[in-house]
Amino acid sequence: MYEGPIQDLIDELAKQPGLGPKGAQRIAFHLLAGEKSDIDRLIAALGRVRDDVVFCAECGNVSANRLCRICSDSRRDATKICVVEEPKDVHAIERTKEFTGRYHVLGGALDPLSGIGPDQLRIRELLRRLANQEDGVDVSEVIVATDPNTEGEATATYLQRMLKDFPGLSVTRLASGLPMGGDLEFADELTLGRALSGRRILA
Amino acid sequence: MYEGPIQDLIDELAKQPGLGPKGAQRIAFHLLAGEKSDIDRLIAALGRVRDDVVFCAECGNVSANRLCRICSDSRRDATKICVVEEPKDVHAIERTKEFTGRYHVLGGALDPLSGIGPDQLRIRELLRRLANQEDGVDVSEVIVATDPNTEGEATATYLQRMLKDFPGLSVTRLASGLPMGGDLEFADELTLGRALSGRRILA
Repeated sequence: MYEGPIQDLIDELAKQPGLGPKGAQRIAFHLLAGEKSDIDRLIAALGRVRDDVVFCAECGNVSANRLCRICSDSRRDATKICVVEEPKDVHAIERTKEFTGRYHVLGGALDPLSGIGPDQLRIRELLRRLANQEDGVDVSEVIVATDPNTEGEATATYLQRMLKDFPGLSVTRLASGLPMGGDLEFADELTLGRALSGRRILA
Repeated sequence: MYEGPIQDLIDELAKQPGLGPKGAQRIAFHLLAGEKSDIDRLIAALGRVRDDVVFCAECGNVSANRLCRICSDSRRDATKICVVEEPKDVHAIERTKEFTGRYHVLGGALDPLSGIGPDQLRIRELLRRLANQEDGVDVSEVIVATDPNTEGEATATYLQRMLKDFPGLSVTRLASGLPMGGDLEFADELTLGRALSGRRILA
């Protein structure tokens, strides 16, 4: 145990994901050995995240304003909504530069064992978005981009059922299959099975 | 890139040792998803480290007061000084519960290529401590516990030369050898060589 303030900082840092006591100690001593202005900048950044980050009123993504950058960008295609679990999934899809539509962040996936049902996710907000469509813009496709695991698949199935009665709306799901750059030989059975059942016609 | 405050926090966190952009992002979103009071506690802990941590006027260890817990503890043997590179080395030796003396923290090791010479370390302070001994207490042993690497060994050699003329003072060095619980077969040549040359008489 170190004296007072340092141990307190180590304890707080060690609560963060991916940091154990050793990693926390390393960061605490790094901050201590550095300039006080480095600590100031970290404190200021934490304060701004605490005070200034809000969730977009439309899509639920993290945002600096009432509407996020994507929802307030009129060039983004409002006829397509990509439904993801978390803000970092928005980031991942944006990096592909393949999607020009809007997003809807659920805030997680269905997981009854952890007490996460439809009411804990932003599903009602999605239905409201689809019902209260602005004049002229009809959402034609909802792409369900939840994770390809048990919870994500269950969420996709639930959404498919909820959305099937919207007229003129197609509900799609991200393809499952072999990861690019991977090796067929090392693919797990489930992934290879999905790749097979989802095979595309080339010619 | 995320919007404003989150990206700023990710950038600040990613500067810390052991955290890359991915780890920083994970912590930022963890903080964002948690209670605001968690961020408050982290900010408060950082502020206290910035404002309240000082270095002990005697040994140079991190401290909450002018003298650290060890230097102000009259039960600690003042005739032995263990010289270490960093505050975390004090912590490591304290954990052994084998040492009841005092410490002296150098603040690093000699490393001419990085511009760290004797004047950049707290060597002058060590000599002053040995010269200005309180009446009645004579330091009889200085244990050089710098790291067993090039810089630490160079520092040990330098200290040995500086301290050899103090009357009645023995200068010792931590033993090098096989780590406990290790396997002789897997020891590197240097360690095994040191273990051999430092062998002890058992009977």
